[in-house]
Amino acid sequence: MVELNFSAGDRVRLRLADGEQDGIVIESPDSSLILLKLDSGYNVGVRKENILASRVLKRYAPVANSDVVKQKEGLPSVGLIITGGTIASKASQATGGVQPITDVNEFLRFYPELMDIVNVKRIEVPFKMFSENMDSSHWIELARQVKIMLDDDSIKGVIISHGTDTLHYTSAALSFFLKNLSKPVVLTYSQRSIDRASSDAHLNLQCAARMALSDCGEVMLVGHANENDDFCYALRGSKVKKLHSSRRDAFKPVNCIPIAKVWSNKVEFLDKYRKAGNGKTELDIEFSDKVALVKYYPGQSVDILDYYALKYKGIVIEGTGLGHVNKDWQSAIRKHVKSGFVICMASQTTFGRVDEYVYSTARELEGAGVIFLEDMLSETAFVKLGFILGHYGWKKNVKEKMLENFAGELNNRLIK
Amino acid sequence: MVELNFSAGDRVRLRLADGEQDGIVIESPDSSLILLKLDSGYNVGVRKENILASRVLKRYAPVANSDVVKQKEGLPSVGLIITGGTIASKASQATGGVQPITDVNEFLRFYPELMDIVNVKRIEVPFKMFSENMDSSHWIELARQVKIMLDDDSIKGVIISHGTDTLHYTSAALSFFLKNLSKPVVLTYSQRSIDRASSDAHLNLQCAARMALSDCGEVMLVGHANENDDFCYALRGSKVKKLHSSRRDAFKPVNCIPIAKVWSNKVEFLDKYRKAGNGKTELDIEFSDKVALVKYYPGQSVDILDYYALKYKGIVIEGTGLGHVNKDWQSAIRKHVKSGFVICMASQTTFGRVDEYVYSTARELEGAGVIFLEDMLSETAFVKLGFILGHYGWKKNVKEKMLENFAGELNNRLIK
Repeated sequence: MVELNFSAGDRVRLRLADGEQDGIVIESPDSSLILLKLDSGYNVGVRKENILASRVLKRYAPVANSDVVKQKEGLPSVGLIITGGTIASKASQATGGVQPITDVNEFLRFYPELMDIVNVKRIEVPFKMFSENMDSSHWIELARQVKIMLDDDSIKGVIISHGTDTLHYTSAALSFFLKNLSKPVVLTYSQRSIDRASSDAHLNLQCAARMALSDCGEVMLVGHANENDDFCYALRGSKVKKLHSSRRDAFKPVNCIPIAKVWSNKVEFLDKYRKAGNGKTELDIEFSDKVALVKYYPGQSVDILDYYALKYKGIVIEGTGLGHVNKDWQSAIRKHVKSGFVICMASQTTFGRVDEYVYSTARELEGAGVIFLEDMLSETAFVKLGFILGHYGWKKNVKEKMLENFAGELNNRLIK
Repeated sequence: MVELNFSAGDRVRLRLADGEQDGIVIESPDSSLILLKLDSGYNVGVRKENILASRVLKRYAPVANSDVVKQKEGLPSVGLIITGGTIASKASQATGGVQPITDVNEFLRFYPELMDIVNVKRIEVPFKMFSENMDSSHWIELARQVKIMLDDDSIKGVIISHGTDTLHYTSAALSFFLKNLSKPVVLTYSQRSIDRASSDAHLNLQCAARMALSDCGEVMLVGHANENDDFCYALRGSKVKKLHSSRRDAFKPVNCIPIAKVWSNKVEFLDKYRKAGNGKTELDIEFSDKVALVKYYPGQSVDILDYYALKYKGIVIEGTGLGHVNKDWQSAIRKHVKSGFVICMASQTTFGRVDEYVYSTARELEGAGVIFLEDMLSETAFVKLGFILGHYGWKKNVKEKMLENFAGELNNRLIK
């Protein structure tokens, strides 16, 4: 076996029987295996005995901490909220995994292009975490911070950097929590850490800044429109979903088109949008955590309904097709709805709308009191249900409120 | 208000203040509202007082029951299994909804084009239901019927007509239950009932028949490739998902390309495929129903794990992104895995693969004993887990079996 003169963090080229392989070495849990992170983002394992030769292309060198980032004068001001995620992380030499950046200046130093577009007047870091660890308490804290920034007259818009895993849940929550937006609220992210050549963070952040200077009064998510580094889309916060685990254009608009095409220096609107208002943005963060999201699967026992009805106020079922579950569920649904438990129906197909009029299955569910949520995304519906049930005053008209279009989450069915 | 001289089932044209609207009248639960089914498949409600004039374009006329369908001689033979769903349904005059066709001859009469391609030698109707009502007992019964047909030397392949709601769960189940396929097994469907002008049933069934005569020894799903009536795709049964609630091209290949492009008169293969073998197809229907599929959502209480671990053998978690859940779940996961409960991880992003090496979240879950399922679809993973845990002999190597590629459900990670 050849001697391997490299360690975790180094960029190397391995010669193998069938060709060469470049990548960054990451720490391997199996000592007989070299793990390489490829430029594509995937990891490859190579058995040590199969390596014919190796060469270090670039030794690992941690970024040095230098001075505080200087801002340019005369640029419009934005607020920046950093919450963690890949966009605020860098690779760890030890594991090859990514770890949060702990210093705000380091964050800005990674993104010098941002300072060509905006003056980052306020920076808040309410928490730092990968988004899979967030819950409604984080959505509420975030909405509070956004509200404070929006009330600052010198700030034109707010940018939020956020992990991708649950970004679409957060964007839905902010869409409901912040009403009559006076300025743009733009969430952005990256799928590849910023010390990697293929990082998508730079373009995303520049386009987010550009969008934050627009006249759009909506909660948006800005990120790569495709796998190239060409331009981004601004997507409505209530109608977006992460549809790929690693691609740069992981976020897709669902049942709608993007609000705008965004470059670092311009915005081209594609859809109708809500213009930012002149008044103050209203904050409404009443929320109940006693809601759940349940994806139906064939043969699923209806016991799961009893389980949730016991301790929760309501659930969103991700039914099949147009909004169906096994007919054996009907009597339990009827019983729980009668006792005040709220049951909503969205579809596990992601795209399209539920329809309670096509098949007897759905007609009977609707008759039993299930609220069919039109073309609302199940994730958005889950967040909205917590928002609606968090308002005691809406207790008597939950169905009406669930079907009221608060933030573009519904493309309403045509009633002439 | 004008007098309305039409009833449910009639095709009418309504004159409204802002133009005309054509559609088929369906029974309305609200007497002040006329419900129209549009050609697009959507329903529209029109308030009676807003109708300025109406005209009946075509009165409703039920299809008359005529003679037994005659088959052409000299064509290759296939077996046909009818299980219900929209493809074996027609609109009900009463409700505008669709109801199952109860007579096999009526089914064939709706699809005369099929008899130009194949001789339907055997027809079985093991059950008739909308697929949301199916469970593993139906998958097993279906696999048994397919096996009997495949063992008939005069039959070239088997076509199964099936509801769309859970078709991809059934196709996954048949992919595992039927090993070393000696002939093609082709599932097909329709999204629009066959008495509607826009029905997709005809092309789907013809292309299914064409595919059933091919040399592909896999379980496939054949249906519209796009919204036109041009051609179909044959999709691998273990890597397909219903991604739209109503479009004709609702089924999409996930993390792979279609096996073939199919017309009524030819097949063009696009991907590598397993050639049908010469031996007998093996039937393996050992299955455990003590498995569940759980979609993680932000803030979800880990109690749901305790709930399932109490009565079930294993679950598939639809985690976020690369396969994550809140870090608060880790200790419970560790505990339950130790006690023999199987926990697998797939992604709720649909596209892409889970990866236990990128973030600490997943590395720790993997360390706690979670089985990361590469790029396997969560629905397929749920079915596969029931299949693996149904085999007592595999009890000691569940992880190895879950990561073994049985039926193309995995695009294996490269290990050189």
